[in-house]
This record gives sequence, C-alpha cells and structure tokens, in this order.
Amino acid sequence: MSDNNVEKLVIIGSGPAGWTAAIYAARANLDPLVFAGRPKTVPSTVLPGGQLMMTTEVENYPGFPEGVTGPRLMAHFEQQAVRFGTRIVTDNGLHPDVSNPDDGHSYSFHDCQRVDLSQRPFVVVGEDDAQYLAHAVIIATGATANWLGLENEQRLARLGGGVSACAVCDGALPIFRDQVLAVVGGGDSAVEEATYLTKFAAKVCMIHRRDQLRASKIMAERALSNPKIEVLWNKIPIDVLGDQRITGVRLKDTKTAEVSDLSVGGLFLAIGHTPATAFLGDQLALDAKGYIKLKDPYRSTTSVEGVFAAGDVVDSVYRQAITAAGMGCKAALDAERWLAEQGVH
Amino acid sequence: MSDNNVEKLVIIGSGPAGWTAAIYAARANLDPLVFAGRPKTVPSTVLPGGQLMMTTEVENYPGFPEGVTGPRLMAHFEQQAVRFGTRIVTDNGLHPDVSNPDDGHSYSFHDCQRVDLSQRPFVVVGEDDAQYLAHAVIIATGATANWLGLENEQRLARLGGGVSACAVCDGALPIFRDQVLAVVGGGDSAVEEATYLTKFAAKVCMIHRRDQLRASKIMAERALSNPKIEVLWNKIPIDVLGDQRITGVRLKDTKTAEVSDLSVGGLFLAIGHTPATAFLGDQLALDAKGYIKLKDPYRSTTSVEGVFAAGDVVDSVYRQAITAAGMGCKAALDAERWLAEQGVH
Repeated sequence: MSDNNVEKLVIIGSGPAGWTAAIYAARANLDPLVFAGRPKTVPSTVLPGGQLMMTTEVENYPGFPEGVTGPRLMAHFEQQAVRFGTRIVTDNGLHPDVSNPDDGHSYSFHDCQRVDLSQRPFVVVGEDDAQYLAHAVIIATGATANWLGLENEQRLARLGGGVSACAVCDGALPIFRDQVLAVVGGGDSAVEEATYLTKFAAKVCMIHRRDQLRASKIMAERALSNPKIEVLWNKIPIDVLGDQRITGVRLKDTKTAEVSDLSVGGLFLAIGHTPATAFLGDQLALDAKGYIKLKDPYRSTTSVEGVFAAGDVVDSVYRQAITAAGMGCKAALDAERWLAEQGVH
Repeated sequence: MSDNNVEKLVIIGSGPAGWTAAIYAARANLDPLVFAGRPKTVPSTVLPGGQLMMTTEVENYPGFPEGVTGPRLMAHFEQQAVRFGTRIVTDNGLHPDVSNPDDGHSYSFHDCQRVDLSQRPFVVVGEDDAQYLAHAVIIATGATANWLGLENEQRLARLGGGVSACAVCDGALPIFRDQVLAVVGGGDSAVEEATYLTKFAAKVCMIHRRDQLRASKIMAERALSNPKIEVLWNKIPIDVLGDQRITGVRLKDTKTAEVSDLSVGGLFLAIGHTPATAFLGDQLALDAKGYIKLKDPYRSTTSVEGVFAAGDVVDSVYRQAITAAGMGCKAALDAERWLAEQGVH
C-alpha cells in the first residue's frame, strides 16, 4: 500500500485476466489488492477463478501440451500472482496464502459489492461495507454464459459430461467426435457454434424456440444450407438426460406443447453471455449488451481515467482464457504507466 | 490440406503468437502449415521460437508459478500445436515431429522467403523457391530488439548474465535488485524502462549518445526529475565487461572520444525494435515504424482480406509473450470464421 492508506491498484476479478493483471502489477511493485469474489454471495459480482472453474479439461491454453484442468490452471495463476506479492481480500484479512486446488482454502475470498469511480482516489466497497481507497482500478469481472437453468444441465457441465457453453473451447474434445450434437439458440453465435461443430460431429441439431432464426440473413442461410445442420423449430429443452454422460435432451414444442426426446452425445448452449457489470451502475461507458467499452480498443483504458478493464467483461467476440490473460497484461502495464505519470510508484 | 493442393491456412512465425494460432487452428481442423523459420538463414524472416529463445527465465507467463525457461516454454507451445495436427515445413518434408528442448531436431525448420498476397489463393514461397498456395495466411513473424552488436553483449544476454532488451520482462529478477543498472537509449521507451527499473534498482544510469533526450518533453522531464535516474550525456557503449555476469560497460564520449568504465549490475537496451516485415514489401499496410497496421485494432484483420496478423509484428506497445499469444488466438478464430464464410471448412 502507498501513502495515506490508498492502495496503488485494486483488481476486481480472479479469472485469467484478473490474475494476469496481478502477476504483472505485482512484479512492477504495485502491491495489487485483489477482490477474487465468492461463489456463495448471490448475486455475486465475481465467480472466483472465472468460467474455467466450470471446465474440466482445458486443451487450448498454450503451454500445456497434455492439457490441464480449469481449476488447476487457475490455481497456478493465483500462486504466481501471490508469489510476487499480490494480496487477496478474505474473511481472514489480506491473504498471501495460496489455494490448493485439491483441498481448498480454510478461508473465503471476498467479493466486491460496489465501487465509486466519481472521484480519485476511487472507493471500492467489499463485504460488510469495508471501504478500500485506490489510485487505480482494473475491472476483470468477466461474463457468465447464459444457461437454461436445468439441474442436470449444470451437474453434467461441472462433471465434464458433455454439456458446454463454449463450442470453441470444448468442441474438439474426443467425446464429441462423430456424435449427434445439439446447439441451443438461434442467433449469430448459435450459427457460428453449430457451423464450428460440424467439423467434428456426425450431425448438429439446432434447437430454437421460434419458427425462424434470429441470426443475420447470411448466417441463417449458412446454417440452413449446411447438410450437417438440422434446425428443430419451436422447441425448448425442458430436461437434460444422462447420468455420467449426456444421452439426450427432452424437448417441448412451443406451439403444440408436445414433449419428445432427442438422443445426443453433446449439448452446447449458445443463448448469449451476461457481462458482470451490473455493480458498476452507470459509472463506466458500456455497450448495448452491457460490456465495458474500451476508449482505445487496442488498449485497456475506459471512459474513466485511472480505471482499466480486461477479459470477458470487455469481450463479446473471443472469450478465451488466453485472450483474457493477454488483456490482463495490457491492463497492468497501462495502469503502471498511468500511475507513473501520476507520480505513484 | 483442402482441395487442389491449396492449404487452408499457412502461419508464418513460431513465437507465442504463431504457435497459439496453430493450436487454435489445428483444433478447428484447419490443418495449419507453419513456417517456423531458421536461425542460419541470413537475413532470416523468422527466428524459430521468437525472442523467448534469447531468454533464460520467464517469470511472467501466466500458468507457471515457478517460472519456465524461454526455450522450454516454446517447446511446450510447439508440442501442443503438433498434438492437434499442425504441420511444420522442414528439410525433411512436412513434419509432425516435436522438438525436444534438450537435444534439438534432427532436421531444420524452413523459413518463408516471400509471399504474393495480390491474388487468392495466396502464394507463400519457402526455401529453394518451393511454392505453397493458401486460402488464408497468418503473419506472426515478430520483431527483434535492436542490440548494440557487441560480442560480449550477445553472449551475456544468451547466458542470462544481466544483459536484456526488455525491462518489463526481466527487471524484477532478483539479480537486478538494489544494483546500479544502465539503460541505453534516449527515447520514450528508454525513459519508461528506466523509470520502471527504479522500482528495483539502487540507481539507473541512462546512456545517451546526444546531449538531450529524444523522448517527448513530459517523458524527458520525468527522467530528469527522478532522483534515482542519472543521464550520462554524449556516451556510447563500446564494450560490455564481465565473464559470467556483467560487471560494467565501457563508454566512449561522442564529443571528446574519452573512454571510461561504468560499473553496473545490469544493462538494458532500449534502442527500439525492428518488426520482421521487410519480406512483405508493400503488400500490406504498415505504420511508419514498419509494424503491420490492423484494420480493426481489436481484431487481427489487415489491409488484405484473408491475411491476418498477430504478435509483436503488430505490437510496438506491450511486446509480451502473453499478449502475443492472445493475439495469435484471435487471428486463428478470425481466420476460421472468415474461411467458413468462404465455404472453406
């Protein structure tokens, strides 16, 4: 901490972007303080570790040729940030302790409840209304995939049982090869994900609640003309079937209310994402979907000087661990240079 | 390879950006073909593995809490790309073999000599004038730090002996703590690097060949007013002293020709970078410094449709392994979506 009880840098979020920002900031002697979030606060601003905590095998994070589990990768990130002096706000004070992916913490991380970015130093409010002052803030709260909210959907997603919200991340896994796969959604992303999955699948069924796709005309035509894609119109999933692995989806017809079962070897949700920006109110410029708008899209600056953003909270396009980590690095370097300009070292 | 002997995607470069693009492209069934470059071709377009091959310990690539050597990290990247089907152009044909950082290859990678981007499919010319056709190309040829070109400078840099061209990468290493460090250069980057190093160093000496800094006024004032920075005017380094570790720099005065020795515990070059774009001629839009201009700075598109760029070849700002890798991912996803639009799967 620098003079007058003002932190040099507070980082909100603990996915790939947040921890990478912490690694770079800690190595630059900025003594970063991280709000890593907690899963039990409902609604929580931040899921500790981000969406990778929902992922079993990560094959595409560069540097791990044999793959790595999502929780283990995030534990590596956290350990690296802590090694260089990152502090984490917890039940038990500001902790330099490191989580063990196998046995968890003996304390809980704290969530950030709200921020006041209207004046400097900024105010970051944690749990129990604890206030922290900060010269600079990096927001890396991520986004969450929208799920159907079915119990077996969530259970199988956590288990690696063939349910996923990211075709690019998971579509190439061996369990999906030559299977019939289902994609839920009817927008451009749903068409992109369905098209992507045709590379691996025997067939891809798009499940859409209406009688026409919401996707742009060119994207819709691409889906309808692809011999490996079949669109099931006017259907909503009402249950996910399977014990250790998905075996099918129970569908209800939105017009006739008829119920039917579709046998599938994988289910991909493509019904959008929700960036975790509600806690910001209208203090930062957001786009129409709620993502933080970058002032310069190559950098990490936002509409408020001294506030930087990184990761899925700014990214509706790529949403990968490696892209988020790259942005976290940019945010830390931008913050470091801006703080040096302000005379904060 | 797709129909008619046309590759779906050729990737030129084998640093963090090139291999990450290959990992993502290979998982998307694009069967990428990589020109990984070779060090013995002079002038070579590409140094295999990129600038990290000059680096001993990498502490800031997220996911490796205990650090990793540059060559080992790049071998991990390569192995991961090859695991998913990336092919590499070599002396011995298109190789799926994987390098071992400890004992090297039994064959050599091939360099890309030139490209013809004026029509599609694009033409990529390898060694011995071998021609490859490609529907899409990713350029990830990187940049090289400018060095003084002194023999002992290069030897100590390779050895991890306290000579570096990247303060952000290496400045926080224990060997530099509380030492007198020298920065060579007088531009904005040199001031940024010197300021950054004051966090760790006892003192930072900027060695500059002229009698005023080339940096912008605000940056120059920052350097001159920093009590830990001393500028040595009108000096050029003519030798680097030290056997296993740097012990000093021999300086020559550019006005008086007087020679003197400065004792230092570290030497940082900050005399610019040269992006590896000469082989492109004027086929792609470049900026004034020779970096490839992105059409949309958030993405990887260039002035030629179907040609994407990633890594230090587009980045004069951050130049980190993790930012380059993030851009490599973007380039592969952009290429995959663009190829799908063209009907290439």
